[in-house]
Amino acid sequence: MRRIRLKVAYDGTNYVGWQVQPNGVSIEEVLNRELRHLLKEDVHVIGCSRTDSGVHADGNICVFDTESRIPADKFKFALNVGLPGDIVIQESDEVPPDYHPRKTASVKTYEYRILNRTVPLPKERNYAYFYHYPLDERKMQEAASVLVGTHDFTSFCSIHTSVKDFVRTVYSIAVRKEDDVITIRISGSGFLYNMVRIIVGTLVEIGAGFRPVEDMQRILDAKDRAQAGNTAPSNGLTLKSIVPAEGPDMTEEEGE
Amino acid sequence: MRRIRLKVAYDGTNYVGWQVQPNGVSIEEVLNRELRHLLKEDVHVIGCSRTDSGVHADGNICVFDTESRIPADKFKFALNVGLPGDIVIQESDEVPPDYHPRKTASVKTYEYRILNRTVPLPKERNYAYFYHYPLDERKMQEAASVLVGTHDFTSFCSIHTSVKDFVRTVYSIAVRKEDDVITIRISGSGFLYNMVRIIVGTLVEIGAGFRPVEDMQRILDAKDRAQAGNTAPSNGLTLKSIVPAEGPDMTEEEGE
Repeated sequence: MRRIRLKVAYDGTNYVGWQVQPNGVSIEEVLNRELRHLLKEDVHVIGCSRTDSGVHADGNICVFDTESRIPADKFKFALNVGLPGDIVIQESDEVPPDYHPRKTASVKTYEYRILNRTVPLPKERNYAYFYHYPLDERKMQEAASVLVGTHDFTSFCSIHTSVKDFVRTVYSIAVRKEDDVITIRISGSGFLYNMVRIIVGTLVEIGAGFRPVEDMQRILDAKDRAQAGNTAPSNGLTLKSIVPAEGPDMTEEEGE
Repeated sequence: MRRIRLKVAYDGTNYVGWQVQPNGVSIEEVLNRELRHLLKEDVHVIGCSRTDSGVHADGNICVFDTESRIPADKFKFALNVGLPGDIVIQESDEVPPDYHPRKTASVKTYEYRILNRTVPLPKERNYAYFYHYPLDERKMQEAASVLVGTHDFTSFCSIHTSVKDFVRTVYSIAVRKEDDVITIRISGSGFLYNMVRIIVGTLVEIGAGFRPVEDMQRILDAKDRAQAGNTAPSNGLTLKSIVPAEGPDMTEEEGE
């Protein structure tokens, strides 16, 4: 048995998310189906980040085990032939049999896009959160900086979670504005359920002036989800990359 | 009767193009339907650029006549309530009754996006032409510069055209590269049918090294469509803006 790792990009618009769900088609399900078709084996992929419905990825990671002798880097081409245009394998390689993507230390980077103008733009409707009050991105950057470091992020975790340990490390958060688009890029060791979207929802309320910049420290200290802002919509979020890092193995991560 | 002008943005992916066609839904048709619903009048919009199926717009222009007393700038909001998310009115204002968008001198700007990497990206599948041979954008810029000015663009016009005069003025063509995306922005007094897409198809062949840079001058001089490159796909093309210009009234323009 060999373990193959796939770097997967997808447009999450038409899916219920990464994980198999009763109410629609998931990314995981489409990958399993295509692998079973290609390999004639009962393949089950193990994903790294279980992204929610509507969330996109440029580089989610998953692994699967196979008896196949196809060279590892050829899986990319073989799978892309049969996959739909909104799921594309970016890379494929072989990893040790005990490599588990959710338990391996890594740096995860998410990007959130906000379209900040008075009228929506059709081409952005699935890829950016349309927000029409003017946002001050400098205030957003100032508030975001409070979150960098190792903290208990209970305030920024959905109450629909099963994890017990709310401590995570955020390495960086960069807020930048180009024309009408504000992009928030956040890197960390791992993220709690909806953590990026709750951080963004809170930053938007600060950027619009509905909350002071100082609120961010107070919210972080409160360890109470009710203190933070709304969960920003899924369409603005993209999982950009997952890069292996030095560090101890982890408890299982949830998705975003 | 008042004449109202609309600046319309759309994602062309799910439409047969601007103009009413028997084989699917057009932008024009959706606008007519929404205006008739709102105004209870038999409205027929007159568009400026009749974009092809799959081509997008950030700012196409159309006009319609109405007896309604709705303030001109309110049409934007009233229409956007009922329009689908892939068609959004950006601006509305009143113009003189003899204003005709296809006969008024204007500067039109198109943008064409090419995704130049080895593997496609799902989120770009409807908004960029995926091209996997490496492109040299400097060669493309050098070749593109030949086209700036007033020329007979017969070589860059689809044979499926009804126009007689092939002389147009291109004010600028800028080719720039950012990460994996090459953007070609072209402004002119008007464009022949498929002109931007044939120019891009030719530039791509030059950028990939399949044709020398010098070919562009030879193709322009030949006044023969068969000498130019392929017509690049519609999905990479966006009509960015149409801005009124000084100049005499024009013969009717075709679309892109």
